[in-house]
Amino acid sequence: MAKPLILVVNDDGITSHGIRTLIEIAKELGEVLVVAPDSPQSGMGHAITIGDTLRLDPNDIYKDVEAYQCSGTPVDCVKLAKHYILKGKQPDLVVSGINHGSNSSISVLYSGTMSAAIEAAIEGIPAIGFSLCDYSPLAEMKHIKAYVKQIITNVLTNGMPEGIALNVNFPVYSETHSIKGIKVCRQALSKWQEVFEERKDPNGRRYFWMSGQFENEDKGEDTDEFALANGYISIVPCSYDMTAHHSVSKLNKHFS
Amino acid sequence: MAKPLILVVNDDGITSHGIRTLIEIAKELGEVLVVAPDSPQSGMGHAITIGDTLRLDPNDIYKDVEAYQCSGTPVDCVKLAKHYILKGKQPDLVVSGINHGSNSSISVLYSGTMSAAIEAAIEGIPAIGFSLCDYSPLAEMKHIKAYVKQIITNVLTNGMPEGIALNVNFPVYSETHSIKGIKVCRQALSKWQEVFEERKDPNGRRYFWMSGQFENEDKGEDTDEFALANGYISIVPCSYDMTAHHSVSKLNKHFS
Repeated sequence: MAKPLILVVNDDGITSHGIRTLIEIAKELGEVLVVAPDSPQSGMGHAITIGDTLRLDPNDIYKDVEAYQCSGTPVDCVKLAKHYILKGKQPDLVVSGINHGSNSSISVLYSGTMSAAIEAAIEGIPAIGFSLCDYSPLAEMKHIKAYVKQIITNVLTNGMPEGIALNVNFPVYSETHSIKGIKVCRQALSKWQEVFEERKDPNGRRYFWMSGQFENEDKGEDTDEFALANGYISIVPCSYDMTAHHSVSKLNKHFS
Repeated sequence: MAKPLILVVNDDGITSHGIRTLIEIAKELGEVLVVAPDSPQSGMGHAITIGDTLRLDPNDIYKDVEAYQCSGTPVDCVKLAKHYILKGKQPDLVVSGINHGSNSSISVLYSGTMSAAIEAAIEGIPAIGFSLCDYSPLAEMKHIKAYVKQIITNVLTNGMPEGIALNVNFPVYSETHSIKGIKVCRQALSKWQEVFEERKDPNGRRYFWMSGQFENEDKGEDTDEFALANGYISIVPCSYDMTAHHSVSKLNKHFS
């Protein structure tokens, strides 16, 4: 039987520790194609390159793996992989990450990692975004490798509901606590509290750095935040249908 | 009674024809604050600026209106407006656009116009994104002005369900057909069919232009595409909860 074709993408760039870990695992499970940004693209959300040109060049840093670096966003990488490199052929699975930092709760909207997975779902391809709640460029990932392999195997074996991408987040490594298991959850409805730090450049003109803090206002015990806070891996099935279906008929009365 | 505070943002940039039209209408209905990108930001989706600095400078092109241009994305503009310019004070309404081009169906995910509106919804602010299905920089907008005013007035009067942003799309101007009315719809579940045109730069290195065609595979008569194709204005209420709720329990069985 032919090995499944697994497309590996990310948003931290083609040389990141996270994508290297993911490639290593994907190679054990299928034929791997890598298309990843040539530089970090964190926070790019579902951005695409429409007013500018795109570069796509082969890169041989990964032994025995066909790999390309792209000047565009994570979503551009998925589009170029499907429509240019694979000439429209569907990969059996798209895996994105492993992201250096959490993409739980509202962060799913800002996340290039998850947007790449959602783009694959739009194309009808089963897709999983993996994120570790540790922002360090050399984050410890040994505690999650077996779980990443298990989740990919599960999806390759059982498939996935159509139009869905999985948002998988892992707790940070702990010497004293091991991961308790997996919980499939809903996205916690919360937000970031931004702070803009104002500075002056050498010419005296002001500029800003955005920073902020995540504040979980959603106290539900069925959320990704709750699962992670209690030592579990969270999996949120994500849809690209943004319609608030419960509001359609109510609003139709407002506007008729 | 104090006039409502209306924040006006967009993704085509602070000098675009669409934002000028929207400012003109908003001024008739409230006190206006403009925070818009200093250059076009189409296709930026929900991107934010986290690895780089941001500029925010006052701009006096609009008479009697406080306006700022920002080096960042449409979502950055909403965040800077709320957390820096307004010091956390909530505007009564955020309006985004009027976008030069359609943001119906799946385009809502790639749209900076709609991502700015959705960011406002995350912050608990009623928000509307307006788009005209005409990509021309000097698109005719005289047929939609009364409707834009009507929709804004409706939301200022009746409010909006919490956590929702409205995705409003208008048919192009026609000398022979006037707009038939408004339909509140669901997002058509369809996608773009991309084509990558390969070219060579003066050094012989290849680069790409992404282009493509929207293909509506969703034949439902309750969609935004159906409404627009039949001469109506489409309004889709959009949520920032990406959870595919119907899949949570099914997937919990897969992973337990």
